[in-house]
Amino acid sequence: MAGKLYGVSVGPGDPELMTIKAKRQIESSDVIAYPAKSHGEDSTALNIVRKCTDISGKRTEEILFEMDPDPSVRESNYREAVSKIASLLDEGDVSMINLGDSTVFSTYMHVSLDISALGYETETIPGVTSFCNGASEAGIPLVIDNEGLAVVPMAMKNEHVYKALRDFDNIVVMKAFNSMRDLAAMMDELGIPRDSAVVVSNVGMADQYVGGFDPGRKYGYFTTVIIKKNGGMRA
Amino acid sequence: MAGKLYGVSVGPGDPELMTIKAKRQIESSDVIAYPAKSHGEDSTALNIVRKCTDISGKRTEEILFEMDPDPSVRESNYREAVSKIASLLDEGDVSMINLGDSTVFSTYMHVSLDISALGYETETIPGVTSFCNGASEAGIPLVIDNEGLAVVPMAMKNEHVYKALRDFDNIVVMKAFNSMRDLAAMMDELGIPRDSAVVVSNVGMADQYVGGFDPGRKYGYFTTVIIKKNGGMRA
Repeated sequence: MAGKLYGVSVGPGDPELMTIKAKRQIESSDVIAYPAKSHGEDSTALNIVRKCTDISGKRTEEILFEMDPDPSVRESNYREAVSKIASLLDEGDVSMINLGDSTVFSTYMHVSLDISALGYETETIPGVTSFCNGASEAGIPLVIDNEGLAVVPMAMKNEHVYKALRDFDNIVVMKAFNSMRDLAAMMDELGIPRDSAVVVSNVGMADQYVGGFDPGRKYGYFTTVIIKKNGGMRA
Repeated sequence: MAGKLYGVSVGPGDPELMTIKAKRQIESSDVIAYPAKSHGEDSTALNIVRKCTDISGKRTEEILFEMDPDPSVRESNYREAVSKIASLLDEGDVSMINLGDSTVFSTYMHVSLDISALGYETETIPGVTSFCNGASEAGIPLVIDNEGLAVVPMAMKNEHVYKALRDFDNIVVMKAFNSMRDLAAMMDELGIPRDSAVVVSNVGMADQYVGGFDPGRKYGYFTTVIIKKNGGMRA
């Protein structure tokens, strides 16, 4: 009888923003698997889990997903990840932990579909996204009444970000940290004032920043820009 | 010394999908305020809270927001809500509870901005959105890699829903329950096959439905359609 794979969302950073279900599932799994961009790195997701669950004595397993420019390295990582998780499942239940929500920009969902195709049971436990947390921290609604919301990674072709900025009332631009000037140029072209944007960076970390949009400033790696064309900013 | 207003997100329905922080804040507040569409109605949000926190002996206060077609009724409800919450805050901390996430389509954010303008402190505690939960229940990614995500209420002008369907890889259509034929017609016009949509309805309730899109079927009030133009559905 094989174990079950749980894709456990651990939320955006504050350990208390884990759900009660995530905590219970992690504490009852045999193995905790955590994604890593490089071998031996300190895992943000695992640190969150350590702060609000008791996992002493539990087996933890690193799952490597390098951000290598060479697609064959990424592909080989990915195949190893699926095979490692499958062999762990042959021994018991596995909680694979993910920052934010597991269904939003997470490699876990690829893994889950492949593990499921191999015949194992899988279940995803949802969590708080970084953009909901960012809006909460900024004290602004993300989307309200009959408005729409677009969530776009800056890594998308700029054309897509442009259309989102043009057609939507509320736009969340993710992975924006090194493209702030491109974003500012698009906003200028569309006549969207700078003060309709709020920047939410490294929330829950020591260098957290929640404040105005300044394309000349340096922001942290986890930087999200929330743009609200109809206002709704706290006075 | 006035109390503080907490906008506490209680998640999409499963009481275990409340965060640890939401539970702690509700248990330490003096008053729990819950929104109601009609006087004396059974509150879904309060029922969620009752199942996973101990609020026995705590004061609960209904905050009325009628869905009246007359804007003057809605305006009068709204003014009474702000004034009632302000007077509760003069006595202590208030947790106003909201389904899903408080920053996503929630009247609370209006209230919070006005209460803040009156000089009271406010804090929003984020939660799990219905659409993240829906994607988890369906076992599909909401958005992955460099794709974009649009979240649109069907109550928006159809033009906006149309643009979202045309320009985005992933579209969440909320409040879709009585507009399934309109949505099907737009998908047909844009050549989006029916099997790229999954319907998530009344999740966590007795009549939960997670499955295929059939515009002729009757769905519950809390119906969300997730459309994935690049696939990514579980095999």
